[in-house]
Amino acid sequence: MRQSQLFTKTRKSAPKDEIAKNAQLLIRAGYIHKEMAGVYSYLPLGLRVINNIMSVIREEMNAIGGQEITLTALQNPAPWKKTDRWRDDAIDVWFKTALKGGGELGLATTHEEPLSALMTEYIHSYKDLPRYVYQFQTKFRNELRAKSGILRSREFIMKDLYSFSRNEAEFKEFYEKCAGAYKKIFDRVGIGESTFRTFSSGGTFSRFSDEFQTICDAGEDTIYVNHEKGIAVNKEVYSDEVLAELGMKKEELTEAKAIEVGNIFPLGTRFSDALGLTYKDDKGVATPVVMGSYGIGPGRVMGTIVEVLSDEKGIVWPKEIAPFQAHIISISGGNKDVIAEADNLYNLLRDHGIETLYDDRDVRAGEKFADSDLIGIPTRLVVSEKTLAEGGVEVISRKTGGTTLVSESAIIETLIEK
Amino acid sequence: MRQSQLFTKTRKSAPKDEIAKNAQLLIRAGYIHKEMAGVYSYLPLGLRVINNIMSVIREEMNAIGGQEITLTALQNPAPWKKTDRWRDDAIDVWFKTALKGGGELGLATTHEEPLSALMTEYIHSYKDLPRYVYQFQTKFRNELRAKSGILRSREFIMKDLYSFSRNEAEFKEFYEKCAGAYKKIFDRVGIGESTFRTFSSGGTFSRFSDEFQTICDAGEDTIYVNHEKGIAVNKEVYSDEVLAELGMKKEELTEAKAIEVGNIFPLGTRFSDALGLTYKDDKGVATPVVMGSYGIGPGRVMGTIVEVLSDEKGIVWPKEIAPFQAHIISISGGNKDVIAEADNLYNLLRDHGIETLYDDRDVRAGEKFADSDLIGIPTRLVVSEKTLAEGGVEVISRKTGGTTLVSESAIIETLIEK
Repeated sequence: MRQSQLFTKTRKSAPKDEIAKNAQLLIRAGYIHKEMAGVYSYLPLGLRVINNIMSVIREEMNAIGGQEITLTALQNPAPWKKTDRWRDDAIDVWFKTALKGGGELGLATTHEEPLSALMTEYIHSYKDLPRYVYQFQTKFRNELRAKSGILRSREFIMKDLYSFSRNEAEFKEFYEKCAGAYKKIFDRVGIGESTFRTFSSGGTFSRFSDEFQTICDAGEDTIYVNHEKGIAVNKEVYSDEVLAELGMKKEELTEAKAIEVGNIFPLGTRFSDALGLTYKDDKGVATPVVMGSYGIGPGRVMGTIVEVLSDEKGIVWPKEIAPFQAHIISISGGNKDVIAEADNLYNLLRDHGIETLYDDRDVRAGEKFADSDLIGIPTRLVVSEKTLAEGGVEVISRKTGGTTLVSESAIIETLIEK
Repeated sequence: MRQSQLFTKTRKSAPKDEIAKNAQLLIRAGYIHKEMAGVYSYLPLGLRVINNIMSVIREEMNAIGGQEITLTALQNPAPWKKTDRWRDDAIDVWFKTALKGGGELGLATTHEEPLSALMTEYIHSYKDLPRYVYQFQTKFRNELRAKSGILRSREFIMKDLYSFSRNEAEFKEFYEKCAGAYKKIFDRVGIGESTFRTFSSGGTFSRFSDEFQTICDAGEDTIYVNHEKGIAVNKEVYSDEVLAELGMKKEELTEAKAIEVGNIFPLGTRFSDALGLTYKDDKGVATPVVMGSYGIGPGRVMGTIVEVLSDEKGIVWPKEIAPFQAHIISISGGNKDVIAEADNLYNLLRDHGIETLYDDRDVRAGEKFADSDLIGIPTRLVVSEKTLAEGGVEVISRKTGGTTLVSESAIIETLIEK
C-alpha cells in the first residue's frame, strides 16, 4: 500500500489520559483509536496485525480439531440463570440491556452457557464426542477501571475454545494437546521465549488451571518462574504445599511481573450438569459431558507484544504478525530516477506477494525514518540517489538496526530469507 | 472436512417459533442456531458461507480504494448528542447500557458519528482527501419485532463504508463507482439477475438514495421494476413527479416485493457540520467534508440467497459462496474398496485445494442424499459399488440435478470448470 493513500498518520503524542505504553505507541503509530477508556477501534494497520494474530491462532486451533463458529453478544438470561451466573455478583463485569418490547438481555463476557445449551441439540451419544468448538468473538466486560490500553478492554475479541469430552481422561488428553498448541502460538507470534505455562488457581470451576504468562513489568500478575524447566507458578497459589505437589523448589524460582496472555482450565461437569448436556454411553446410560475452556485474547497478545518488544524509537513487530513485511522508503528529493526505482521495487515486491508499505510521501527523510521506526515493520528498504549510485537498495532490520546494501536482483531472496 | 466429525447435524424441523423460510432451512441444515428471536449464531457451515460473502465484498471494496478498519460496538454518547441522534426517538432501535462507574453507553446501530469524529484527527487539508473507509462490524438494533430470520436481526454483521470527499462532484464520482462495485458483488454472490438498483427515499439525510433490491416474496419492500433498463423505483417515492424526473413510464414498470440487500446514500455535510470535520482547501479556507454511506449486510445477503435460490429439497448455494465446492457421498455398505476409493477421492480434492465435505458417515444412502440436498453444496460426487464397477464417480449438480459419470482422472478438471 502507498503510504500517501493510508488515511492514518503518525502522531507526536497520545491522548493525555492514555497512560498504558502499548496504547500510547499504537495510537501514535496509527494502529488503534481510543473511543473512550477501555474501548479501542482498530485502524488499517492495527486490523492487519490483529488479523495476522488471529490467523496464527486459527491455524493452531484447526490443527487440533477445532471447529469454528460465531456465537452472539446478546444473551438470553435463561441458561445463565440455570448456572446461577446471571447475578451481577456472580459475574461482576456484566453489561445489561433490555429489549424494546420488555425483557432483560446481557452482553456476553464469556460463552459457556449459550454453547453448552446449543450443544445439547447435537450431542446425544458417545459417538458424538469428543468435540472442540471455538470462535473469535467480541466480548464485553464492564471493568470498573480500564487503564491498561488493549491489555484489558471493555470490548475486545476473544478466541475461546470449549472442549466436550466423554470423560476425564479424554478431556485431559485434549487439555495437554491444547497447551502444546498454545506454546506454538506464542512462539509464532514472537513472545515464546518470555511466555511460561503457569500453574494457577482454577477460580470457581476447579482447584487449579493453567495460565500462559508473559514476563513484563506492565503485567498485573506476579509469577514465580523456573527458567530451566520453562514453567511457573502464579502467586495466587504459591505455597509450600503446591510447590511440593509440583516438585518445585523455592530456590529455583524467580519472581516476575507478568501478563496473562492465555488460559486453559477444566470446567468438569459444572455446566453440563446445570444445562442438561449429557450423552448416552455405550451401555445407554446418560452421562454428563466433561468440559474445558481455552482462551486467548488477540488484542491482549498484540498489546503484550508492543509492551515486550518495542524500543525507545517505537514498535518492533515480529515477522509473522507484522502489518507489512517490508517498508520501502523513497528519498527522492524530486529525482525522477529515484522515484522510478522505488516504484519498480514496490511493483516487484507486490508481484512476489510480499506485503509492502511504500512511503511515497513528499516529506523529509528524517520524518520518514522516524515514522518507520515508530510503525515497526520488520524490514526497511531505502531507495535514494546514494543507493542508486551504489547499484542497490539499503536493507535495514528494524529489530537489530543492521544495514546491508542488496542488489535489486537479490532483494526478493533476501526478504524471503528474513 | 469429514462429515462424521462435523459437530452439527441436519434436523427434521426448525423451532416452532421460527416462521421465516431462510432461518428454517438454515437451522435445519445446521448453518445457524437461534439464540432468541432475531439473534442467531453462525455454526461451522454458516460461518464458511458468511465468510465467503464477506470476502467477495472485501475484494470489491478494496478494488475501489476502501481501507478496512473495525470500530467498536460500545458508543460514547458525546458525538451522537452533537448530531442529535442519541435520543431514542431519533434512532428508534438503540440498545442502551451503562458503565459500572456511571455513564450511559449505546450499542452502535450505525457508525457515522464515531467515524466522523475519528476522521477529524486525520483529515486537515485537501491533500488528505478523498478517503474511503469501511468495516465489517457487529451492529445491534433493538427491533420491536424480529420475524424475518437473518433478513432482519437484532445483532448482525454489517459492511458499512463511508466516503469523505472534497465536494459534491468528487462524492458523486465515487458514489457511482460504488454502485458499480455493488452490482459486481450481487452478480458474484449469485443474485445479480434478480437485484435492481432502486431509486428510493433519502430518509432524513437527502431527498433520494439508491437501494439494491432483490425480488422476493419474503421482502418487506414494494418496488416498480423496469426490467429492460435494469432499474427500479421504491414505492415510497413512486409518484408521477418522480417518474417524470427519472424519465420512466408507468407502463414499463412491474410491481414486485423485494428485499433491500444494499443501500448507498448521500450524507452531504450533515455529520461533518455537526462534528467539525472540515479541511482546508487550496486557498486555506476551512470547508466541510462531503460524506456518503454505503451498506451491505452479509447475513441479509445470505438469507436472501436462501429465500431466492432454494428449492423444495433445500438450499442451493451459488459456487462462489458455498461452504464447500464438492460434497463426496460414500455409499459403501461396508465395502472396503468403496471406502478406499472415496478416501482417495477426498485426498485428491484436498491436494488440489478444492474445499470438500466428505460424507463418510455410517448412515443409509437415502439419508445422505436428503442431507446433501438440504445442505446445498454445488457439486455432489457419489462413490458406490455401482460407480466403482462403471469406472468413475457420479457427478451431480445440486442446481440442475444433471448427472454424469466422470473418470477419476478427469474429476479435478470437471470441478474446476464448474
